[in-house]
Amino acid sequence: MGRQGAGPGSKENALTERSLNQPLGGNQMPRTGGPATMMRLPAAETAAGLDACFVGIPMDIGTSNRPGTRLGPRQIRDESRMIRPYNMATGAAPFEHLQVADIGDVPINLFDLKKSVDIITEHYRGILAHGAIPLTLGGDHTLTWPILRAIKERHGPVALIHVDAHSDTNEEMFGETVAHGCPFRRAWEDGCLINDKVFQIGLRGTGYAADDFDWGRKQGWTCIQAEECWYKSLAPLMAEIRAKIGDAPVYLTYDIDSLDPAFAPGTGTVEVGGLTTMQGLEIIRGCAGLNLAGCDLVEVSPPYDPAGNTSVIAANYLYEMLCALPGVPQRG
Amino acid sequence: MGRQGAGPGSKENALTERSLNQPLGGNQMPRTGGPATMMRLPAAETAAGLDACFVGIPMDIGTSNRPGTRLGPRQIRDESRMIRPYNMATGAAPFEHLQVADIGDVPINLFDLKKSVDIITEHYRGILAHGAIPLTLGGDHTLTWPILRAIKERHGPVALIHVDAHSDTNEEMFGETVAHGCPFRRAWEDGCLINDKVFQIGLRGTGYAADDFDWGRKQGWTCIQAEECWYKSLAPLMAEIRAKIGDAPVYLTYDIDSLDPAFAPGTGTVEVGGLTTMQGLEIIRGCAGLNLAGCDLVEVSPPYDPAGNTSVIAANYLYEMLCALPGVPQRG
Amino acid sequence: MGRQGAGPGSKENALTERSLNQPLGGNQMPRTGGPATMMRLPAAETAAGLDACFVGIPMDIGTSNRPGTRLGPRQIRDESRMIRPYNMATGAAPFEHLQVADIGDVPINLFDLKKSVDIITEHYRGILAHGAIPLTLGGDHTLTWPILRAIKERHGPVALIHVDAHSDTNEEMFGETVAHGCPFRRAWEDGCLINDKVFQIGLRGTGYAADDFDWGRKQGWTCIQAEECWYKSLAPLMAEIRAKIGDAPVYLTYDIDSLDPAFAPGTGTVEVGGLTTMQGLEIIRGCAGLNLAGCDLVEVSPPYDPAGNTSVIAANYLYEMLCALPGVPQRG
Amino acid sequence: MGRQGAGPGSKENALTERSLNQPLGGNQMPRTGGPATMMRLPAAETAAGLDACFVGIPMDIGTSNRPGTRLGPRQIRDESRMIRPYNMATGAAPFEHLQVADIGDVPINLFDLKKSVDIITEHYRGILAHGAIPLTLGGDHTLTWPILRAIKERHGPVALIHVDAHSDTNEEMFGETVAHGCPFRRAWEDGCLINDKVFQIGLRGTGYAADDFDWGRKQGWTCIQAEECWYKSLAPLMAEIRAKIGDAPVYLTYDIDSLDPAFAPGTGTVEVGGLTTMQGLEIIRGCAGLNLAGCDLVEVSPPYDPAGNTSVIAANYLYEMLCALPGVPQRG
Amino acid sequence: MGRQGAGPGSKENALTERSLNQPLGGNQMPRTGGPATMMRLPAAETAAGLDACFVGIPMDIGTSNRPGTRLGPRQIRDESRMIRPYNMATGAAPFEHLQVADIGDVPINLFDLKKSVDIITEHYRGILAHGAIPLTLGGDHTLTWPILRAIKERHGPVALIHVDAHSDTNEEMFGETVAHGCPFRRAWEDGCLINDKVFQIGLRGTGYAADDFDWGRKQGWTCIQAEECWYKSLAPLMAEIRAKIGDAPVYLTYDIDSLDPAFAPGTGTVEVGGLTTMQGLEIIRGCAGLNLAGCDLVEVSPPYDPAGNTSVIAANYLYEMLCALPGVPQRG
Amino acid sequence: MGRQGAGPGSKENALTERSLNQPLGGNQMPRTGGPATMMRLPAAETAAGLDACFVGIPMDIGTSNRPGTRLGPRQIRDESRMIRPYNMATGAAPFEHLQVADIGDVPINLFDLKKSVDIITEHYRGILAHGAIPLTLGGDHTLTWPILRAIKERHGPVALIHVDAHSDTNEEMFGETVAHGCPFRRAWEDGCLINDKVFQIGLRGTGYAADDFDWGRKQGWTCIQAEECWYKSLAPLMAEIRAKIGDAPVYLTYDIDSLDPAFAPGTGTVEVGGLTTMQGLEIIRGCAGLNLAGCDLVEVSPPYDPAGNTSVIAANYLYEMLCALPGVPQRG
Repeated sequence: MGRQGAGPGSKENALTERSLNQPLGGNQMPRTGGPATMMRLPAAETAAGLDACFVGIPMDIGTSNRPGTRLGPRQIRDESRMIRPYNMATGAAPFEHLQVADIGDVPINLFDLKKSVDIITEHYRGILAHGAIPLTLGGDHTLTWPILRAIKERHGPVALIHVDAHSDTNEEMFGETVAHGCPFRRAWEDGCLINDKVFQIGLRGTGYAADDFDWGRKQGWTCIQAEECWYKSLAPLMAEIRAKIGDAPVYLTYDIDSLDPAFAPGTGTVEVGGLTTMQGLEIIRGCAGLNLAGCDLVEVSPPYDPAGNTSVIAANYLYEMLCALPGVPQRG
Repeated sequence: MGRQGAGPGSKENALTERSLNQPLGGNQMPRTGGPATMMRLPAAETAAGLDACFVGIPMDIGTSNRPGTRLGPRQIRDESRMIRPYNMATGAAPFEHLQVADIGDVPINLFDLKKSVDIITEHYRGILAHGAIPLTLGGDHTLTWPILRAIKERHGPVALIHVDAHSDTNEEMFGETVAHGCPFRRAWEDGCLINDKVFQIGLRGTGYAADDFDWGRKQGWTCIQAEECWYKSLAPLMAEIRAKIGDAPVYLTYDIDSLDPAFAPGTGTVEVGGLTTMQGLEIIRGCAGLNLAGCDLVEVSPPYDPAGNTSVIAANYLYEMLCALPGVPQRG
Repeated sequence: MGRQGAGPGSKENALTERSLNQPLGGNQMPRTGGPATMMRLPAAETAAGLDACFVGIPMDIGTSNRPGTRLGPRQIRDESRMIRPYNMATGAAPFEHLQVADIGDVPINLFDLKKSVDIITEHYRGILAHGAIPLTLGGDHTLTWPILRAIKERHGPVALIHVDAHSDTNEEMFGETVAHGCPFRRAWEDGCLINDKVFQIGLRGTGYAADDFDWGRKQGWTCIQAEECWYKSLAPLMAEIRAKIGDAPVYLTYDIDSLDPAFAPGTGTVEVGGLTTMQGLEIIRGCAGLNLAGCDLVEVSPPYDPAGNTSVIAANYLYEMLCALPGVPQRG
Repeated sequence: MGRQGAGPGSKENALTERSLNQPLGGNQMPRTGGPATMMRLPAAETAAGLDACFVGIPMDIGTSNRPGTRLGPRQIRDESRMIRPYNMATGAAPFEHLQVADIGDVPINLFDLKKSVDIITEHYRGILAHGAIPLTLGGDHTLTWPILRAIKERHGPVALIHVDAHSDTNEEMFGETVAHGCPFRRAWEDGCLINDKVFQIGLRGTGYAADDFDWGRKQGWTCIQAEECWYKSLAPLMAEIRAKIGDAPVYLTYDIDSLDPAFAPGTGTVEVGGLTTMQGLEIIRGCAGLNLAGCDLVEVSPPYDPAGNTSVIAANYLYEMLCALPGVPQRG
Repeated sequence: MGRQGAGPGSKENALTERSLNQPLGGNQMPRTGGPATMMRLPAAETAAGLDACFVGIPMDIGTSNRPGTRLGPRQIRDESRMIRPYNMATGAAPFEHLQVADIGDVPINLFDLKKSVDIITEHYRGILAHGAIPLTLGGDHTLTWPILRAIKERHGPVALIHVDAHSDTNEEMFGETVAHGCPFRRAWEDGCLINDKVFQIGLRGTGYAADDFDWGRKQGWTCIQAEECWYKSLAPLMAEIRAKIGDAPVYLTYDIDSLDPAFAPGTGTVEVGGLTTMQGLEIIRGCAGLNLAGCDLVEVSPPYDPAGNTSVIAANYLYEMLCALPGVPQRG
Repeated sequence: MGRQGAGPGSKENALTERSLNQPLGGNQMPRTGGPATMMRLPAAETAAGLDACFVGIPMDIGTSNRPGTRLGPRQIRDESRMIRPYNMATGAAPFEHLQVADIGDVPINLFDLKKSVDIITEHYRGILAHGAIPLTLGGDHTLTWPILRAIKERHGPVALIHVDAHSDTNEEMFGETVAHGCPFRRAWEDGCLINDKVFQIGLRGTGYAADDFDWGRKQGWTCIQAEECWYKSLAPLMAEIRAKIGDAPVYLTYDIDSLDPAFAPGTGTVEVGGLTTMQGLEIIRGCAGLNLAGCDLVEVSPPYDPAGNTSVIAANYLYEMLCALPGVPQRG
């Protein structure tokens, strides 16, 4: 399982000074076999020597409705097995430019959410110390707060692109400040965000108060409700966002429930009338050119994903995030 | 289970003369617990004192293909558990303005469709006598005919907004006049409808004769086939419909199979190429301002809804109907 | 939904001094409709005036593998809808002798397991203060510890019949003392148990050490591994257990994973080679004659129960527990 | 699809005077293809010239809880595709001795149960007039009554072997006399049964009155509750039954819910603690030697059968019934 | 199962010189019963006398990721049961103009892909010799190559409309030239195609090299990637394609994975961001007027289609292909 | 993912000369995370230095009915995550005595079964050359033949314990000699077996000829049909088999379809009336003391295993095989 992928990129690899990891190809091993790592990449124990890494957080104890995201990282990895190295839409070839591996999972404490939050921050300090960009497979959305704490320690406050059905800025849930409905309120309190460079896309549904989405707006955040996105390309929106963010460091957090449940049934707090996967692709591809410091894909709940396709989307979106990282050229 | 919801709307309630029922909030009880009523509202035995009520009809014996809608009301109620009181898109706050409860199910006769039809009419006479607006959780579409008979007794003929993949105007099915493909033929025969204010939206698929959809047109009805709706917002259509209906009493009947099966797999007579949930939201929200006398959401079949999301849509649509009722202000 | 069931027991009720609640019968309302309470019994807000009550704990945050038991109480109630009032095997007619209702769910804190444990104890203090016997719908097995704490306060230490694939006597899990693998270690520490009257039935599988099951034996507990139960009736075992317990107060805790996964797929920590449902029925029916002070049925995880039948078993087992309570005569 | 099966029995066929239909073999066509008839036998329009015939009744409107048996016949046929011609347990080779075909479905009226009942009786009059023995693929259990009416017209009253979780002898359900809980009460009223040769096997669960199962006993029927069957072979029971029936004409009606739901999840009114499939095989194989006049297999509900295996059982049981018919030698 | 459908088209049939097969209507037999042929049409043993025929290929051994397409033809036929004879969108009435039947499946060799390919070509030679247009129910996409070989023998090279997520022009897979990723490379080598009349629609996802989709372009093919199709009607594209093809013979091959997995989850090599079913309908309806020589619908994998709706789409698309054949008038 | 497991066995490890691999424990990483290797053991690239190894063969192209076993190895590994190191029934502690790792999958050719067979033999030559005992995760049953060829090269002919519903001794299927119904005929032809030490357990169902199971008997094999196993422990049978085999090298091949489908729904060629998992455990545990040279567990098809529990059984059975290997002491 640690075998060196002798993938189709080997010719190009010869041109680089270091040997770059390649996903295990379908012509070396049937797609349904081989290591169950992300994209069947080599596994690594730490982020040392990596430009980017996939890392899982098998957690769902921050969830308020349907559980199951603790199984997300395994299922996303499993369903990533079909992804080939070249991006046919953007021309990106990330494995020709970046050293990438799957560094496994964060050993969170399934019985204590507050302790898990600290374990996560500590774990990401380690990843970031190696200079690697983390691409996180969630797990419930609580996890973005502790990641942002570690990101802030390394990069200072960051711009945020937050794609979600929910604003996740509750002061508390059931009296608790740590829960999957609160991470961005906590991150804001901790000074992790550049408030005029925070963009929330896809918010919708029902709320506890008429002004639930306005709290962020009051902090200077831009909130684009799902209704503003219907029936159209989001490429123009992303151009605008790129212009506003400039070269500030950016964190991209993608909650799969931003998508309409027709596309992504496998999640816990479903809201009707969401984004399409096409729009999601435009958002992530639209991040190319930004100074991405980290990305996550959260809230995939395999027990509610009968055909496994929510995980297929998640796996592809994580690959698209990799394609959008600094250092990966888009089509010439 | 009859406990008074001490929801976030309690402050506003203090301002009203009567105490209004509130859904049990997620901060009082985990979303996956609490009473399995619609939106975890208080249950009531009758519609006495209510402005609007949710009522279920656990029936599927009028169905011609896949069965299962007898389980619809229970599943819709179960999946309504996530809905919070405020509508983030329209600003509607129905529980600040209306007294609402869940009055349970109609005790239909599962072994005799014709008797069930009469049981339904009688039951709705009772609801309407209390002045409450019924929001019905189906159940197969046969049920709209007996409801319309009761509606007519109270309001006279009504305008009709009928969202569906099928016209449901068959003279008969398998020689029978009572079946889920016939309710609007029967309602027309009974004089329940204002024929120049009948709008059928979403019709498509195949028919027994080339002019299946033209029968209604001959009665003066407006029939908008699904193909006319593709790729665009239906807000303009709804503006037109509102103008045509004016202040006539209106009945809204929403068959979940109007939606494309990508969005709503859990139904019995599936037709490809339907509406999106976004369009469905526009239709229901576009009913605000009309003089709605009743609404139903029919044909949800839980055995064909593996992730439960068809019921999530149904629950949200019923909530949106509540938000569109007379007496509920839209965003200032 | 609070309507007085006019069930077939009404004749007998006339003979009693008080009117006893009856499940809503299938001839009053289709089985797939009516209130989604346990057995479609009347709901009650508290245990006041009740001899026994069904109560749910929608919790899964003590779970170590697959989640989902937070949905157990709702699903068990839903699938209890078919159960009629008379027990054809034992002749028990519990609704002719006991006042029973469904008192809803315990409002646990989904984000903090340790706080939930205290909420549960407090809630059961209230139930027990009314003199009602609680029949609990779980929920993960962590919940039995806080219930036993409340039971001890009222009854002193109790005998225990513990049916399970696992001994649940871990000193800790992931460093935590509160988790679904630890409740009986905690209950033992708290002095809740009469150690020579503790019976564990169905243990099997793999362990962290060769003597995992011997810890209890060292405390004087009787541990009957699953292999000792294969291919035979457990009625003789239960006769033995009844003799050993005598008239001490007893608590019955039934983990659905005691059953082989062929019978009960819908649970989180599956162990191969377990009990059959027939043996489970013999165990519960074999408790008739004991001085039962409380019972629970835990670890039903609906997302892993594709046909819903694990919940059907759970619902029936809870009914059988009711039939075995003191005050319910068995067949003449 | 009407092609003559040139199966492995062709050598033997040469020895018979007429050419006997053979199932299409797996070496002629992949198991997942070929005609979707029972066992991929030739289809026939009527029972003319047949010794035995498979016939479907796609009905579920007599069902009281979960629906879906209207899809039973199609699913049973689909899952019969693996069955080869020789019975390895009994040595029976039915296609060497009987002319068998699949004669399709009864065109019942899905919207009127009472009319459907008469359609069935009429249809079976036609089958029986050809002298063919009908093997029926249900459909809900209501259908046995109208079949028994036709059987009586041809054979007079018959002995009955009724395998079921329920006695199905209700006077009425929801005030109706035609429903899936009533067929044997109706058949008794119509004089279809030889009362001292009626055997009910597998009854269990809960009832509306303590003496629900005693009604049959009062008519002279033998009722073997499931508890009497646990943990042992039913071959001795069947020997006893054969002795009591002698050479009276017999009808075998097999409700799939007689089986424990572990074996047969795909049915509508599930009862815990039932028979095993091994016992079911013993019952049907134990009918060899009796003068079987007809058989049915009812209550398979495909929407509740996620892996399709309940239909696999049903298909095999129907094949075993064919193997047990008069004229089919058992192992020499 | 061979019964003559006495469908609603009988009046028109009287006007034609020959009697045309009709689908068995829902008023003759419940939709869930009747023969499990395509649209419940009569079965035929060969294509003799037919204008068009439905034919299945139960194969999946050319598949590289998830299997299951061997079950496609049976499931598509099953789910075609709801389709009525008239096309409400286009006015086409194919059964008034064409003699159509279901001629069953090709007896492929499930254990040897290369032999199966030759069996297919031979089988289609037979169909084409009768002058019938084959409408194929797949099966994995490998099958289109052997069909095109037979088509070429009869019609010479053809124009191709190829709707798919993948170009399927790999030189080889795992060293093999026969696999579901290679059929159009093989067909090109065999001279089956008119290269400037080849249109590939819906390609997307990831590739083994940056220029994967350019191989076809180099041969003169037109390749329209999925991204070019998002958010808009494809009717204009089809007008263009019709103009370019003129009256050359055309083959239409429709891979269900061209659709976004939200619409068609039941397939094996899922790619995110695909076509909608509405666009698929426009493509097929847009083929009316072309000189179609054959059509196929491939890659439906029922085990990944939990609600059966991918097969519903496939069945409807095959019906729409029938409606688009030469000789079927569109709405007057 | 290659991290050294610091499991609870570390104390014992200190006593051995070499450091033994340990499964990653639940107290180091949540069960739903960590490497997706068998039992979360370390991965290894070859069998060098191992006493035993887990190896997968992701193949299903030898399957005749339902496909899906290509996904077996991944799913079995995933569901092995709960297994702890100590066997509570037998006292075996394999990781204290054997060096074990997961060496990944065999790179079979999914498009050519005959080539795959040779790839497998070659791969096992390599494993056996290291002196490791292979424990194989299938894959369809075709794979046992090529493994036995390699086994014979190293050990000479072997005794065989073959647990299965089918004899798998067909001369050919669809004219092919390589298929999942033929491996033991081929192994016999190749002289791989000691014919008077071959035991087939669990055979049942239907056959192509009355003497299908007698072919083996004619070669001296012992064939125990499922009916002989019903309702009783198989421990006595295994004692007999052990006595007959003595110390000859033995291969154990376990087809999951030997189990009744109630226990193991997730397989392709289902036969009713099979073994129980308890009997399966007795068979495998009953192999302790034999000179096992290799074991496999085949025919798990995840798409037909809705709750994942067939894979749980398979994972546990593979662990039990490990526990039964030479060099692992049973309970003292």
